[in-house]
Amino acid sequence: MNAMLIVAHGSRRSASNEEIRRLTKKVTPYVEDSHTHVGCAFLELAEPSIETGIVQLIQQGAKRITVVPYFLAQGTHVTDDIPQIVSTVQELHPGTEIVITDYLGKSEMIPEVLLNVALK
Amino acid sequence: MNAMLIVAHGSRRSASNEEIRRLTKKVTPYVEDSHTHVGCAFLELAEPSIETGIVQLIQQGAKRITVVPYFLAQGTHVTDDIPQIVSTVQELHPGTEIVITDYLGKSEMIPEVLLNVALK
Repeated sequence: MNAMLIVAHGSRRSASNEEIRRLTKKVTPYVEDSHTHVGCAFLELAEPSIETGIVQLIQQGAKRITVVPYFLAQGTHVTDDIPQIVSTVQELHPGTEIVITDYLGKSEMIPEVLLNVALK
Repeated sequence: MNAMLIVAHGSRRSASNEEIRRLTKKVTPYVEDSHTHVGCAFLELAEPSIETGIVQLIQQGAKRITVVPYFLAQGTHVTDDIPQIVSTVQELHPGTEIVITDYLGKSEMIPEVLLNVALK
């Protein structure tokens, strides 16, 4: 059973965290053929934490979890923090394979998105 | 004369800030018909600051500057920090109109970008 966890930074503004939850619901229909559960989690300032988000998916039966860093730039959160957290949880749960994809800003679609926002 | 300023958070990792500079160069050809100068600036941790980035464009003759927040979620940086900085610079330079566009994460293309990254 495959699952997906969208990992965002988290904000003091609950409206900002709600955006991530809405996005998670929005993409779910597109991946539910291949991913039984899709969740979101936050590095800081909001719940669930990444650890909790992963463990919840494992408890729901996930044998493979795809962690998608919802970050634009490859800062320390993407290079260090998220991999460290995932590595710690992975050691505690060897029966589930946890993989981290590229961060969002790595997509080749980003210049087009920027123009879409900037020129409208 | 129109100019565009892409405003990112800024990182301790210079490679991350270089990503923004590369992106700025990448989108420039697509907007230079309508924008004589395209620059980038950082809220913190990298140079130029937003203030400096705007003033440089004004010194280059910009009469209208489009500030594009390169952020994924509508956190306090997007709702408070960037508008406050822009407002302060605007008061000091009334001869140039400074407008702030939607932040990147507001684009309706984002779910597609997420799937593009998550499923590849």
